Amino acid sequence: MSDMINVGIIGGSGYTGGELMRLLLRHPYVNIEAATSRRLAGKDVCDTHTHLRGFLDMNFEDLSPDEIKERCNVVFVAVPHGTSMNIVPQLLDGNTKVIDLSADYRLKTSVFEQVYEIKHTNPIDAVFGLVELHPGVANEIFVSNPGCYPTGAILSAAPLVTAGLVDAAIFDSKSGISGAGINPSVTSHYPNMAENIQPYKLTTHRHRVEIFQELNRLDNSLTNISFTPHVIPSVRGILTTAHIFTKSTLSADEVRRIYTDFYKDKPFVRVIDGIPTLSAVRGSNFCDIGFEVDTQNNRVVVVSAIDNLVKGASGQAIQNMNLMCGFEETEGLWVAGIAP
Amino acid sequence: MSDMINVGIIGGSGYTGGELMRLLLRHPYVNIEAATSRRLAGKDVCDTHTHLRGFLDMNFEDLSPDEIKERCNVVFVAVPHGTSMNIVPQLLDGNTKVIDLSADYRLKTSVFEQVYEIKHTNPIDAVFGLVELHPGVANEIFVSNPGCYPTGAILSAAPLVTAGLVDAAIFDSKSGISGAGINPSVTSHYPNMAENIQPYKLTTHRHRVEIFQELNRLDNSLTNISFTPHVIPSVRGILTTAHIFTKSTLSADEVRRIYTDFYKDKPFVRVIDGIPTLSAVRGSNFCDIGFEVDTQNNRVVVVSAIDNLVKGASGQAIQNMNLMCGFEETEGLWVAGIAP
Amino acid sequence: MSDMINVGIIGGSGYTGGELMRLLLRHPYVNIEAATSRRLAGKDVCDTHTHLRGFLDMNFEDLSPDEIKERCNVVFVAVPHGTSMNIVPQLLDGNTKVIDLSADYRLKTSVFEQVYEIKHTNPIDAVFGLVELHPGVANEIFVSNPGCYPTGAILSAAPLVTAGLVDAAIFDSKSGISGAGINPSVTSHYPNMAENIQPYKLTTHRHRVEIFQELNRLDNSLTNISFTPHVIPSVRGILTTAHIFTKSTLSADEVRRIYTDFYKDKPFVRVIDGIPTLSAVRGSNFCDIGFEVDTQNNRVVVVSAIDNLVKGASGQAIQNMNLMCGFEETEGLWVAGIAP
Amino acid sequence: MSDMINVGIIGGSGYTGGELMRLLLRHPYVNIEAATSRRLAGKDVCDTHTHLRGFLDMNFEDLSPDEIKERCNVVFVAVPHGTSMNIVPQLLDGNTKVIDLSADYRLKTSVFEQVYEIKHTNPIDAVFGLVELHPGVANEIFVSNPGCYPTGAILSAAPLVTAGLVDAAIFDSKSGISGAGINPSVTSHYPNMAENIQPYKLTTHRHRVEIFQELNRLDNSLTNISFTPHVIPSVRGILTTAHIFTKSTLSADEVRRIYTDFYKDKPFVRVIDGIPTLSAVRGSNFCDIGFEVDTQNNRVVVVSAIDNLVKGASGQAIQNMNLMCGFEETEGLWVAGIAP
Repeated sequence: MSDMINVGIIGGSGYTGGELMRLLLRHPYVNIEAATSRRLAGKDVCDTHTHLRGFLDMNFEDLSPDEIKERCNVVFVAVPHGTSMNIVPQLLDGNTKVIDLSADYRLKTSVFEQVYEIKHTNPIDAVFGLVELHPGVANEIFVSNPGCYPTGAILSAAPLVTAGLVDAAIFDSKSGISGAGINPSVTSHYPNMAENIQPYKLTTHRHRVEIFQELNRLDNSLTNISFTPHVIPSVRGILTTAHIFTKSTLSADEVRRIYTDFYKDKPFVRVIDGIPTLSAVRGSNFCDIGFEVDTQNNRVVVVSAIDNLVKGASGQAIQNMNLMCGFEETEGLWVAGIAP
Repeated sequence: MSDMINVGIIGGSGYTGGELMRLLLRHPYVNIEAATSRRLAGKDVCDTHTHLRGFLDMNFEDLSPDEIKERCNVVFVAVPHGTSMNIVPQLLDGNTKVIDLSADYRLKTSVFEQVYEIKHTNPIDAVFGLVELHPGVANEIFVSNPGCYPTGAILSAAPLVTAGLVDAAIFDSKSGISGAGINPSVTSHYPNMAENIQPYKLTTHRHRVEIFQELNRLDNSLTNISFTPHVIPSVRGILTTAHIFTKSTLSADEVRRIYTDFYKDKPFVRVIDGIPTLSAVRGSNFCDIGFEVDTQNNRVVVVSAIDNLVKGASGQAIQNMNLMCGFEETEGLWVAGIAP
Repeated sequence: MSDMINVGIIGGSGYTGGELMRLLLRHPYVNIEAATSRRLAGKDVCDTHTHLRGFLDMNFEDLSPDEIKERCNVVFVAVPHGTSMNIVPQLLDGNTKVIDLSADYRLKTSVFEQVYEIKHTNPIDAVFGLVELHPGVANEIFVSNPGCYPTGAILSAAPLVTAGLVDAAIFDSKSGISGAGINPSVTSHYPNMAENIQPYKLTTHRHRVEIFQELNRLDNSLTNISFTPHVIPSVRGILTTAHIFTKSTLSADEVRRIYTDFYKDKPFVRVIDGIPTLSAVRGSNFCDIGFEVDTQNNRVVVVSAIDNLVKGASGQAIQNMNLMCGFEETEGLWVAGIAP
Repeated sequence: MSDMINVGIIGGSGYTGGELMRLLLRHPYVNIEAATSRRLAGKDVCDTHTHLRGFLDMNFEDLSPDEIKERCNVVFVAVPHGTSMNIVPQLLDGNTKVIDLSADYRLKTSVFEQVYEIKHTNPIDAVFGLVELHPGVANEIFVSNPGCYPTGAILSAAPLVTAGLVDAAIFDSKSGISGAGINPSVTSHYPNMAENIQPYKLTTHRHRVEIFQELNRLDNSLTNISFTPHVIPSVRGILTTAHIFTKSTLSADEVRRIYTDFYKDKPFVRVIDGIPTLSAVRGSNFCDIGFEVDTQNNRVVVVSAIDNLVKGASGQAIQNMNLMCGFEETEGLWVAGIAP
């Protein structure tokens, strides 16, 4: 039997903040103690996250890092990159456990500064919180939560890469528009997105570097890694089509064995027989993976599907919290998706 | 502390069947014992309801009413109208509690036969399981679950009707396409539905009779009741715009008091300040209600929003089960919706 | 054989501006001479309206009313309400024909000031350019183009109202989101609109007054007119469900005769046998009308479907231009919609 | 000045049949003489293609090849693969020009039989009617219209392949659901497609062979060609993301020059500065192409966008007809797309 913990969310007014609350409400050992928003301080949380009406009776607060860590055992930081680095270090001098959902601590400092084109003011080493590859998060008090695209892309390729079988990997990813955030923009304008699909940053998206870092860590001879993102007319979900060129011809059975072995103790990865689809993971923390072998080109096409706001953000953050706090990995997260 | 009950679902391969399972999986006192499907007998339930993979390890079965009632304390009947009447009576001779999601037992037999144009082979009296109006379901072993449109329409008008204030009510309802079921049809063909909205049965939809029966029961002088349904390019949800002509001019405050009083002990009805929206109820058992008073025409425009598969079908059926079995009304259903 | 005319568009960067250009490009007697945009002056028109690439070789200009009327025979004013009134009078002192797409000249001045809550600085009498009811536009040099909702609503009810048969009319309208314009907003934010339907201004939308003005003009005993708008997850189109209470019971044949007679010489109104749908009018200037008689409540449910950007705005403006310039009413507009 | 021609459509009840009519209605030299449908013979064409109401006054007919060629100068064959081969030869013994939209004559007979797993009963040589690569269609009386995916894929890569610069090409294509046809199916069922994206036939789609045939013809040393299709929640459009590995590092300027040179006389290919989008080509015969150079991997990512029913089917067929009949290539097709 576990004790209850108090949890705080810095930056609670966005989609990842709302999703953290929706999911934490089901967690038997969590009390949602505070959610901050400078802009909405004093306003009812449920005026923003209207689906939570009746479940939360709290207002957004404008709290300093010191104030929130005073009241909380765990703090999630859900603010834009570049902002997080000024908050995290102040949270880390006590017993508070911290999970950062921004990009600030995912990459080596030098790489971060080059890719994000800003100076890192407070470098700290952090584990990359993709639990399936980094079970060591269980011993950490600070974890950096992965990006949404990298989560689906890395999981789709990790087994073959770890086996040293990959020559090159092209990740062609398709994301729901909620990834662009809660604030209206040209991209998220309904008439621009409906009946459309919008590729962007064809070769230069920042998440490519996260994917590279993690896959190259698994096989440092692998450098030919490409990533192209698209936005599709869906709210949630990231489907990644990984075109993986292998060093030799593999049979479907071999590939299946490699994937099922690799993920055999990972409750949130489901290696399936058919082709994954966003419907089957919506609202859940699962990553579904399926594949087909292209015998003509030494290519394996692997498809992964996640909910970008759950396994791609808030669910994965709670998965990290569970391990960091000694809870079951699945605690509060063992919920089926919603379909149709 | 309650004992566990065994639950069976007759007709488990459709959307309401899948939704019953998704919701019952969270219910602390329910074991899903059996789900029937003649067509899919022997097939893994999760090949049809792929979002439930990892949560259910069972195949569809082809069971007679006798066989299923042998194994179950509660049976949900989720088959088409006209079929249910041949199953329900066989379930009812023992201790098994039965909730019928079809239309077969919602109306008086004579009305049913006229509206559905079939002979009723096994008339039995059943409570109309709209719990907010019929708390007496707690004493029943057989309940007829309301139609999806009637649920939202009746709840939107019941307080004013009960107060004897209504002259006429026009219900203009908009439903997600999942209401048309899991089988492909011309209506559900994506190119026919996308970027469209399709009114149908402008004056003759069968659900009008259910709405009439229940509102007329609350005020038998009220007969001017119209209902026009539309399908919108959404999967889930029914939004009803009720144009209610009142006998006298009401202030917004009066209307608000009437609604909040009427629903003050009803956990699944939220009377809100603004205008309801499908996003806030998706995946949940809530009915959100908001309104505006039109001082120019003695008209109150009331808007209700429900998830057609939850409060409009499977969630409401479980709400009935909870009361029939002596559980808390909210047991297993007290879950926030999913947004965005 | 007609001479070519030069056409200018004041406010060319929005959806109605783009749609005017798309349609005018097909008009055999029109040269698109200028399109203004203060913000985008000097920028290629096709960087904004990318679908027009290859068809237009012009930049937005920042032109005064005097400058544009110097170069144009016809000027369309496609600017927000409140702005138009400061432009139109300066255009009207010469030979230039003017069609205003804003609300500034649709209503009687006193009504306008009350409803829009601004002082009208330059009242001028203008014909309400709903050609089917106001064929007199042919003699005008200034016409005020109707609002999008009123176009569909008025056309759905006009025949019965003109016949003096209507007691009350409730217009429940559903609009595509392009009606909210080209600029991103909370309403048009994709995650807010997808899988949703959003009623708004349930009893107080400004277009109610336009509908009232025009129907009351046809039968001044008719005052019970209600209007409730909704936004649906579609880009284009307005479907109006008109719940019309009649003074006596009408047969379907009578209603059909009334509608077909009324619209017999109106090329852009199609009275159809079934129920209209947005798909059949998308991209075209048609208004499709269908209906069903509710014998139980002396109610006729009439449904009209238009493309809000064509018959509801730019197409109708060109229809006005055609008559004002002595062209065939259908010139350049006789194009089928696009489906699926 | 051209003479009018009579045009017939075999298989007029599907989406490509409807689109042929929509487009041919604008063609100044075409009379639509007949449209066949065995199932709908005697029924009004506009009951199926409701957007054409008022433009066509004709019924579907059940005509033999002999009967239709008697009345028509040009016949489009829009029937499923395997059926066309039994019709085309009977049309070809006279003066009638024939354009086949099926797959039956796109591939070498031996390849066709292997890929489609049926015996070809009537092999005839036909030009692959991708006009941009096969201007020789002007001299033909029989042309085989390309598949929808191959059109976008081949056009995206042809310039670099022709220049001998390509090592490998992975085409990751995303298609609107109208490509699956007018008949309801599990794939096109709205709840299966909305808020989703569905990859299928990850490595074995038949269109891969068409792409291979045409690109290999341009550079017979190129054999590493992969193709993976997806269906997206849009009605129209195919967006292809071509991940092209080049033999050497190319600058963006070099690539741009190669593409603009290659397509300089091709009116329907627009090489643009940004990234193509389906909105800009919807309803039109254009193929928009844009690209970005990935300097890290000798990769060029080229994106093409077409309307699958126009440039991917019926528009391209008319483009072929224009050349075969001595009309301007753009006759009847020089129409901007529709946006938003």
